Amino acid sequence: MKHISSRDNPAVKALAKLASTAGKRGAPVLLDGVHLCQAWLQHHGSPDQAIFDIERLSQPDIAALAANVPDARCLALDARLMQSLASVESGQGVAFLVTPPALELPAVVDENCVLFDRIQDPGNVGTLLRTCAAAGVKRVFLATGTAAAWSPKVVRSGQGAHFSLAIHEHVDLGGLLSRLRVPLVATALDGAQDLYDGRLPGKCAWVFGHEGQGVAPDLLEAASLKVRIPHDMAAVESLNVGAAAAICLFEQRRQALHATR
Amino acid sequence: MKHISSRDNPAVKALAKLASTAGKRGAPVLLDGVHLCQAWLQHHGSPDQAIFDIERLSQPDIAALAANVPDARCLALDARLMQSLASVESGQGVAFLVTPPALELPAVVDENCVLFDRIQDPGNVGTLLRTCAAAGVKRVFLATGTAAAWSPKVVRSGQGAHFSLAIHEHVDLGGLLSRLRVPLVATALDGAQDLYDGRLPGKCAWVFGHEGQGVAPDLLEAASLKVRIPHDMAAVESLNVGAAAAICLFEQRRQALHATR
Repeated sequence: MKHISSRDNPAVKALAKLASTAGKRGAPVLLDGVHLCQAWLQHHGSPDQAIFDIERLSQPDIAALAANVPDARCLALDARLMQSLASVESGQGVAFLVTPPALELPAVVDENCVLFDRIQDPGNVGTLLRTCAAAGVKRVFLATGTAAAWSPKVVRSGQGAHFSLAIHEHVDLGGLLSRLRVPLVATALDGAQDLYDGRLPGKCAWVFGHEGQGVAPDLLEAASLKVRIPHDMAAVESLNVGAAAAICLFEQRRQALHATR
Repeated sequence: MKHISSRDNPAVKALAKLASTAGKRGAPVLLDGVHLCQAWLQHHGSPDQAIFDIERLSQPDIAALAANVPDARCLALDARLMQSLASVESGQGVAFLVTPPALELPAVVDENCVLFDRIQDPGNVGTLLRTCAAAGVKRVFLATGTAAAWSPKVVRSGQGAHFSLAIHEHVDLGGLLSRLRVPLVATALDGAQDLYDGRLPGKCAWVFGHEGQGVAPDLLEAASLKVRIPHDMAAVESLNVGAAAAICLFEQRRQALHATR
């Protein structure tokens, strides 16, 4: 494994630049920490490059990662160089440089999926991706104006969800509607049916909206089903978008699991 | 209404100090923005003090707030002074200074409630409080080691949930157990029952745990019911604590709402 101890090494300079500009469209991404690197290996195999803190290469979890990447793609860095690349204060001594898969919009969408309508907060977007993956969703569409899915904070909140999902970014959701072969379902406060009244579609396109404004009017208009989570309105006006999505997606999952028994 | 234009005014100095040390035990709290101030008024009545941007006093939502606070408790600040107190970049021109209610631990806990076991992230704690309030929970217990409930970031994420909840902080959860007259229910991955199998208690003490470590072993041991949310384990290891809590609390609510029909 190649060992680098100089901050002026071109590979280190390129990585440092990436660490500060991550999340840009089409750019490679630096995955930070043992868990994310394990999850990448499991879903996508080898990274473009694996970067290790030379002092921690003998740690079992780090060694196991190194053993799964061809030696020519591995770099061992001095501890202080490695720390300068970490996105959090206490780096774990390993990072993978990866290229997110480039995806074409499918001509026809006939599976259960989720549309993110301008969700602003990176923590919310990461948590939502994690919830989608946990609920068995395989494909998500992020509208232009949604926080960048591959930014360090969103990747960190996603906890590996990114690697089991097909994530389409910069999508014109209005334009996507003509490709949907599943009903569009939106959460709304007005003119909506109680989430627990009646049966949810087995497959649909859920749309969850902007933290302050909710789902955009044209998408609400196009929805074939609007659902309302019956919450205590005297206590709070609304739920956090991540909490609302978790409730909806797992109610759908509950109904699906029960129907197969 | 008293008008202040000097940064050296003692009242302004005291507020500025508070804005930077907020969340400390027993300290007053500065609530920032129209929505939080409205919610405080609705649940607790007048604040200790109401602070306004003098240039925005004629805005209808701001004027409505001012009309509900005795004039002697109102201060009008020059815009630049007001902005220096705001916790976010674009202040809304109004803040309330309030004292969170001091609560004694109840001798006996016989209502539906939630225990926060060392939840670290302020955004998670705020979202959880909001979800609890939305689910109709009235009382929560935050273990020592949980993010401070009244810090600006948690209050902001809570979106007013703080004011409809009895929030006990710095609680020894192990010591609390002897006061519980409702079953303790924990989320766990091992030795747990599927959340959707069987009926949840109508009233219980839910415990949700640390983002990395989950619920502490002594609390898991003491739980009379352990539930597992049946998620897609191949996609992600676990759910975000806020998403997990939303799913559990609203499944309990769903069962309760259906039983009364």
